[in-house]
Amino acid sequence: MLLVSALILSSDACIAQTNEPANDWKPATTNQGGKEYPQVNSEGRVKFRVVAPEAKTVGCTFRDSSEFKKGDDGAWYGYTRLLDEGFHYYMLKIDGAEVPDPNSLFFYGAGRWGSAVEIPAKDRDFYALKDVPHGQLREIWYFSKSSNTNRHAFVYTPPGYDKDTRKRYPVLYLQHGAGEDETGWGHQGHAGWIMDNLLAEGKTKPFIIAMEFGGNPFAAGARRPTNAPPASASASGTNNAAGPERRPAFNFNFSAFEHALIDDFIPYIDSTFRTIADQPHRAMAGLSMGGMQTRTITLAHLDKFSHIGVFSGGSIGLTNITDMATFKKKAKVVFVSYGSKENGAAAKANVEALRQAGINSVYYESPETAHEWQSWRRSLKEFAPLLFKD
Amino acid sequence: MLLVSALILSSDACIAQTNEPANDWKPATTNQGGKEYPQVNSEGRVKFRVVAPEAKTVGCTFRDSSEFKKGDDGAWYGYTRLLDEGFHYYMLKIDGAEVPDPNSLFFYGAGRWGSAVEIPAKDRDFYALKDVPHGQLREIWYFSKSSNTNRHAFVYTPPGYDKDTRKRYPVLYLQHGAGEDETGWGHQGHAGWIMDNLLAEGKTKPFIIAMEFGGNPFAAGARRPTNAPPASASASGTNNAAGPERRPAFNFNFSAFEHALIDDFIPYIDSTFRTIADQPHRAMAGLSMGGMQTRTITLAHLDKFSHIGVFSGGSIGLTNITDMATFKKKAKVVFVSYGSKENGAAAKANVEALRQAGINSVYYESPETAHEWQSWRRSLKEFAPLLFKD
Repeated sequence: MLLVSALILSSDACIAQTNEPANDWKPATTNQGGKEYPQVNSEGRVKFRVVAPEAKTVGCTFRDSSEFKKGDDGAWYGYTRLLDEGFHYYMLKIDGAEVPDPNSLFFYGAGRWGSAVEIPAKDRDFYALKDVPHGQLREIWYFSKSSNTNRHAFVYTPPGYDKDTRKRYPVLYLQHGAGEDETGWGHQGHAGWIMDNLLAEGKTKPFIIAMEFGGNPFAAGARRPTNAPPASASASGTNNAAGPERRPAFNFNFSAFEHALIDDFIPYIDSTFRTIADQPHRAMAGLSMGGMQTRTITLAHLDKFSHIGVFSGGSIGLTNITDMATFKKKAKVVFVSYGSKENGAAAKANVEALRQAGINSVYYESPETAHEWQSWRRSLKEFAPLLFKD
Repeated sequence: MLLVSALILSSDACIAQTNEPANDWKPATTNQGGKEYPQVNSEGRVKFRVVAPEAKTVGCTFRDSSEFKKGDDGAWYGYTRLLDEGFHYYMLKIDGAEVPDPNSLFFYGAGRWGSAVEIPAKDRDFYALKDVPHGQLREIWYFSKSSNTNRHAFVYTPPGYDKDTRKRYPVLYLQHGAGEDETGWGHQGHAGWIMDNLLAEGKTKPFIIAMEFGGNPFAAGARRPTNAPPASASASGTNNAAGPERRPAFNFNFSAFEHALIDDFIPYIDSTFRTIADQPHRAMAGLSMGGMQTRTITLAHLDKFSHIGVFSGGSIGLTNITDMATFKKKAKVVFVSYGSKENGAAAKANVEALRQAGINSVYYESPETAHEWQSWRRSLKEFAPLLFKD
């Protein structure tokens, strides 16, 4: 017994000394069906397997990863540093080519469809697929007069939406970050399962979530809709008068998106879904750039929005509010959040100042996360229960 | 003038002799937003650009493609043979690694998420995005008792479904092929836009389309749902009792899918959507393996289905029908189709025999296409107007 213990201890010590990763690898939940790699271990490392028989060098875009080496089976293996819990975009590098990992599912982020991997979080239960009543994620196309284009969006309708067709619902307009698009919240954000689970536990009121493309500040120019049936005719441009949207660059000027949202999208949602189409029953939130858009647009349209959520995207300070009496009357909730590994100190102070001024303002810090989706999934989970309470 | 003409003629002749591709390349409609490559030309070739600075060899999975060579910008260029009109799956090959093209959108086919390219077809207008009323493509999750899993499906609801909430609709159950999944018809199949356009022209009755995963006969074993938020908890398997479906191998035994469809999916659709839940208002169709499933399942359940569509997946012969009197009474339409580059002769003869026997049976041949999506998009376009006419 003592001998065995000693061996185990020395084995542990050896692992610590040589920094060998823990050998409890499991396939990532972000893998394509049936794919054994990439794998994640209990430390939060990711291990890749890449079949590239003739390659000289193989790697990935995670910084500080191990050297990739050929295994006995001729495939390349390598692993990452310790990563935070949650969701991370990446690409493989094969002889200098940056390509998606053929083993992973694909997500839109960093301005492209590419690979991503999920490090299981201790609190992952709140966005897990469970046997509870499910809402629907609806892919919609609508014609935007302001831009003369067909625009693409997603709408989450809560469980039971199709059952009682007299019931009407409030709406949360929920925006993605820079380099992301309208697919983000429904896909990697798990907005639908977060809402389904909150609703099953009676922790939030049911509401509709509308998710639009908010622009790409990094775009060099035109851009097609993504994660959607591509417009078959647009290569010729001849047989599709109202073709798919050619999206302009934004450069953090949000006025084009503001027009699309206020003049086209909100009226479309209100005319297509059973919404309660008034200011008290309309919220806006967003992450990163989407948070900045939320601040800019809600402050300019307090007649349209009552609940405001800014996730890792700044905050609302007293100096941003030109008419405090109106703001107090109109803004029912101001929610601001950051990951603990971001610098949220100024935002937290602003929230406190708002609260001192009599605004219902809430600050949330996501434990041990940075400027990534785990912070924003948690932010939605914290924000939703504050909405439409009266 | 004569000299110029002569030069042009000799230039043309030269092109023909050396088999140089036509130099009218345009970005493919299947590219990610803003990506200039892959490009397609008027001949139906695809030209790739691959950034792989250190690679020794670069290519693609299209057979008979040109050699890929480094261009002046250091990127690799190569092009394909003449391809048929329509949609083709492919992957890049970089020093022996088969990887998705980082420039293309991703589609599920050939048993994996990977790249695809669209060769514009002369008749592409029927599946183009137009400024017409649009239906919705709804992503749904439902609990299947027969398999004790959460199952993933898509449902197309026609334009106006949410407007008149007293109206009820027939349902077409529409299946993908082997190596594909429930995302195929809504994504590369353009089922939604085909229906939107037919409806806008008054060429079909409105109906719901329900699209389920029909199994993967090539699967080595378990398989996670795809194109859907992955189950965050399944890596540990501890906090998600009713976890995502572990899909069994089928090996062209359709009984598991038959149970899922008949016992779980149809009842779920009928209880969740405003269907007309009877045999005269229920159709089934599918492509390739989905066509075989359609034949097997409709013949075994003529009490449930009245309209039958088999696209590139065999046909129904007189010998398949055990009780002709019942079949005549129950089967309102038997539609069978093949691409002209497939061998549809036996199917065509079977359709003619059914017609002689007094069955409303229709054969359609898709011009100049093979066992690919262009055949099946056209088949849906031809089949839909035949449905639910009385």
